[in-house]
This record gives sequence, structure tokens and C-alpha cells, in this order.
Amino acid sequence: MMCSPDQLMAVAIRLLERRGVPAEAARIQADLLIEAELRGLPSHGIQRLPRLLARIDRRLADPAARAMMTWTRPAFLSVDSRRGLGPVVMLAAIAEMRASVAAHGMATAAIRNANHIGMLAYYVDAVARSGLIAIVASTSEALVHPFGGTEPMLGTNPVAIGIPTADEPFVLDIATSLVPMGKIHHHALRGEPIPLGWAVDGDGRPTTSAQAAKSGAIAPFGDAKGYGLGLAIELIVAALCGSEMAPAVRGTLDEEHPANKGDLIILIDPAAGGDRAAALSAYLQKLRASRPLDPDRPVSVPGDGARRRKARIGIEGIEVPDALWNDLLALEAA
Amino acid sequence: MMCSPDQLMAVAIRLLERRGVPAEAARIQADLLIEAELRGLPSHGIQRLPRLLARIDRRLADPAARAMMTWTRPAFLSVDSRRGLGPVVMLAAIAEMRASVAAHGMATAAIRNANHIGMLAYYVDAVARSGLIAIVASTSEALVHPFGGTEPMLGTNPVAIGIPTADEPFVLDIATSLVPMGKIHHHALRGEPIPLGWAVDGDGRPTTSAQAAKSGAIAPFGDAKGYGLGLAIELIVAALCGSEMAPAVRGTLDEEHPANKGDLIILIDPAAGGDRAAALSAYLQKLRASRPLDPDRPVSVPGDGARRRKARIGIEGIEVPDALWNDLLALEAA
Repeated sequence: MMCSPDQLMAVAIRLLERRGVPAEAARIQADLLIEAELRGLPSHGIQRLPRLLARIDRRLADPAARAMMTWTRPAFLSVDSRRGLGPVVMLAAIAEMRASVAAHGMATAAIRNANHIGMLAYYVDAVARSGLIAIVASTSEALVHPFGGTEPMLGTNPVAIGIPTADEPFVLDIATSLVPMGKIHHHALRGEPIPLGWAVDGDGRPTTSAQAAKSGAIAPFGDAKGYGLGLAIELIVAALCGSEMAPAVRGTLDEEHPANKGDLIILIDPAAGGDRAAALSAYLQKLRASRPLDPDRPVSVPGDGARRRKARIGIEGIEVPDALWNDLLALEAA
Repeated sequence: MMCSPDQLMAVAIRLLERRGVPAEAARIQADLLIEAELRGLPSHGIQRLPRLLARIDRRLADPAARAMMTWTRPAFLSVDSRRGLGPVVMLAAIAEMRASVAAHGMATAAIRNANHIGMLAYYVDAVARSGLIAIVASTSEALVHPFGGTEPMLGTNPVAIGIPTADEPFVLDIATSLVPMGKIHHHALRGEPIPLGWAVDGDGRPTTSAQAAKSGAIAPFGDAKGYGLGLAIELIVAALCGSEMAPAVRGTLDEEHPANKGDLIILIDPAAGGDRAAALSAYLQKLRASRPLDPDRPVSVPGDGARRRKARIGIEGIEVPDALWNDLLALEAA
């Protein structure tokens, strides 16, 4: 089913509001999901909606929750989301941080008990457009094995970095796993093998079977360095948010448990360090124009691809798999 | 030549003091170099001393410089090092930051015009031992090509993260290049080939010739993700420090130019987010005990290897290559 962004947005908002999600919260949650579709990240798009609705039905997500925000220090905001919707608490925390960032030059928000915050690029892009540097990191269920290890001990622990420039912001959004678990499932569904090195099976053996990898663990990206970075995120998020570490994390991939991972936001005002936006843009232009490995594929900057996809998908429409579309129709009819 | 740490430290301090480096500054600079040797990172050890001495002789490094520190915001310290020694200004900035971190929960220092700050683990380890989370990042001369590109457009842009736990701190210290340029030079010196994928030659062609790679560019670690991270560091450091970006950076690898890269320090007080040190340690112990890929190589945590090497090298002594030792003797006799 090919949908226009507006059409899909309307469906998502209706489904959320029918479960008692306040209008503004429904708009924010739907906007996050549609934005993921537009940027070409359907794994974080509308396919997340049925699970979220089930979580609301089971009171694992409380769409009307008011987050408890405490400034434990003038530049440190501790947030108990109280089972609130991820994007709603994230935007509320960012709004709450702005005065502190303006006053102190930077601030941190450490969030616990929030539902899935989805695609991190959503937040750092918006913050960078408003002139601030943003670093957002999040933890998850244990899906990734340590470098040199074979058990799922770490989350996919994504980190996103947004940096204002004189034109479009720099937007990096990476998981610290080599591939998303969704990609493994996708291969398993089609009966396709996975490259050796992506994952180990449940017994810890390197495998090319996507099916076997589903009960195993994914490799970290970048060998020891990527493992180290993912582990640093695991520890910093837990230390500052008071959230659980991967082996004990639940609630972003299931419909049974409250979400107990953590979400961290660091904002820095580049104006505190001098205005370099024009120099950054000039450098990025030189980078894009530098000699590519393949003459047909120019060097790109993180965020470029998502913007190109958004321009195209915004016109062509969002491709919703038929099974998912039928699920959404059934949920509307229910 | 096998040296005890004390012996090598004394040589380094003597050589520095004879060039007018104040006693405390000489001790700090020497301690950084010896600590790199002890942690098994000789590329950042005593072999850096002759170049630093030459830079002092040529007034590219001013060992008596007083950094100009300005709190542009209550939690943002802007530092002009005025050609000071890297480790001296780093420790001065960290000392200056402590009261702000205690008061606000976090602070940033953005340093420009400092000489090479050396091994980043030195700083984050010390800060983590004092109970704070530390993130340190630095830029450098252009040595790394973009993912999908072939020209040296990025620095090796290392990042280090230190996190206090209930026992030894977590200490990650990684360059965002796949390998250090020193490793390419090492292979070239021995006439050994390098694996395909490490580097491209001066014409941008993937090469196995270490000699050809010296005039080319090193790959980023972790393909597109590592490239994105290195680029984020390039931009954040320049934006906040007011320093140059890689193609214009000089002065950490030569004896002709003032150093114009940037160094960034972010400190966060984990006490602002609740005390989780014991939980972090318990998790790291489970991680170390998790099933390894090779039964003879247990899973390790960043910082473990450096501590093991330090314990061993502290007893066995530091191996100084004869040519370097003779250089040091000649400098002493001069």
C-alpha cells in the first residue's frame, strides 16, 4: 500500500487518540514514526505502532503520564518518565533544558522509565536546527556480543550527534551493532543467509544462518573500537539515568514489560565557543567534493542520504507492507 | 636499551628542564610520556620527546606559557593555550573545571593552540579515579579518508571516555582511524606489506604497499559508522574550540608550525544522576566472565589490557629502541 505522509499520519493519530492519547502527544508520536519512514528507516517507522498500541492497552505505556523532572544540579536534569511515550518525554526534556543551556552553555538530561524513543536523528536534527549541538544516546535489550565474546551482553546502544552548520545540520545516527536485529529477521524471513561475521548462534558459533542468529547475538560494529564505544554508552547511560544494563533491560521489543532502559541527552551551545558554522559548512563542502573511490558515488556526509530519501519519499509516498496495512485497518475497525 | 620508569622519567625531566621548562611542567610532560610507555603505547611515549624539544627550541612550544582561561558561560571554559605544553594545559583546565562540575553537574573545556596532548587515556583515567565521567576528544592533521573517499580529509580524531566504577575505572581510548599512521610507517620501515583496506596511496588507489600508503590516506575504522564518528569529532572540536579542521591542521607531527588543532574535555558528575558504581562493576564482571570466542582469551573490558601491561612493564622495564636512546644521550650531551 502506497500512502502519502499526511494519510499515514492521520491513521496513526486516529489510532493513538482512540486509546486516549492526548492530541499533542499523539501528534508527536505519529510525527516521529512518519519521519523515520520519510528518512528511509522503516524499521523505526509505522511498523512500531501496533506494538505501542498494545503496550498502551496493557498500561505498559501511559500516554497521559506527566514526567517527573528534577534539576539535581543547575545543568543536570534527572527525568522519571513514569511509563510515558518516548518522543513525548524527549521533547519535553529538551524544552525544559533550553533555558539551562542558554544560561550555562550546556546541560544534560538523563531519562529513565520512558517507552521507546525511536529514531534518534529525529531529536538531534531538530535541536541542531535550533542552533545547539546535541548528543543523544540510548540503551536497549541485550542483542550484541562483546568483541571476542559470544553472548548477548550489550544493547544496540545507538548514539546520534547533531551539529548546526551554516546550511543543513550534520546529523549522525548510528547503532553500535554491526547490523540491526531487524536486518537479521528480514534475512530469516526470506530464507537468505547472512555474511559470516554479522552474528553468532545461540551456542556462540559464528553463523551464516539468519534463523540461527535470531537466538544468538549480533557483532559490534568496528571490532574492538565499536565494542568499546557501545560499552561506554551502556555504562554512561546506566550511570546517569539510573536505568538497567542490557541483560536486565526489557520493554522496547515486547508487550509484557515496562521499559527500563535509559535515554541520555547532552546539549551544548556552540555560541559559547565562538561561531564557526560557516567554516563547518565550507569544510563539509570540500569533503563532499573530495575524490571518491567510485566516480559515480560522491563522498557523502551523515544526514545527506536521509535528506535525499525524505525529498523523494515525500513526493512518491510511503510504501507500507500489505500485512502491516491490514493490521492497521483491523486496529481501526476494532 | 631497557630502562626503569624512574630512570626514563629522570632523563625526560632533565632534558625538559634544561630547555627552561618549569619543574612542575617538566614533571607533568614526562609523566604523560612514561605513562604511555607503561600502558604499552610507545607511539605516544618517549619517542615524542625529541620533536617536542625541537619545538621548544623553535618557540613553537612555550613551556612557560600561561593559558588564558575564560568562562564564557558558567559551565563552558574557553582556553587559549598560547603554545603551551599539551598535558600542562589539559591538567590546568581540568583543575579549573572541578568547581564548576561540582556546582553545575557538568562542564566543558574547549582548548586551542595547545601542543600535542598525547595519550588521551592519561586524562580520563585520572578524572575517573577522582569520581567524574570524562569525555576527551582531539583533532589532528588530515590523515584519514572519508568512507567512500580517497583523500586525507579527516584527522585521526581520537576520543577517550573514562567512567568511575566501584573498582578500576572503565577507560576507552580510540583513534577513529582504522590503524595509526605510526603502524603504516612501522611496516614501511620493515618492508612489510599492509592488508588491503588499511589505506589508499597518493592517487587514491587501495594499496598493500606501506611505502605508498605513507603519502596516501588511512581508512576510518568501522566503515561508514566510524567515518561518521570521526567527522562528528572533527566538527564538534572545531566548533567549540575555534580550532582548524584537518586539511589546515599543522603542528603535532612537524617541527615547523604552531599547533592549531583543538582539544575538548567534557566532565559529568555521576553523583548528579545517582550512584551506580557498584552496579557498573557487577555488570563489567559478568561481561568479563561471559563466554569468549576463543576459550584461551577471556572477554576484556577497555582499560584491562593497559593495566595488565602497566603492571608487567613497571617491573620488567621500558624497552627504548637503541636509536632513540642514542638520540636522547646526544641531546643530553648537547
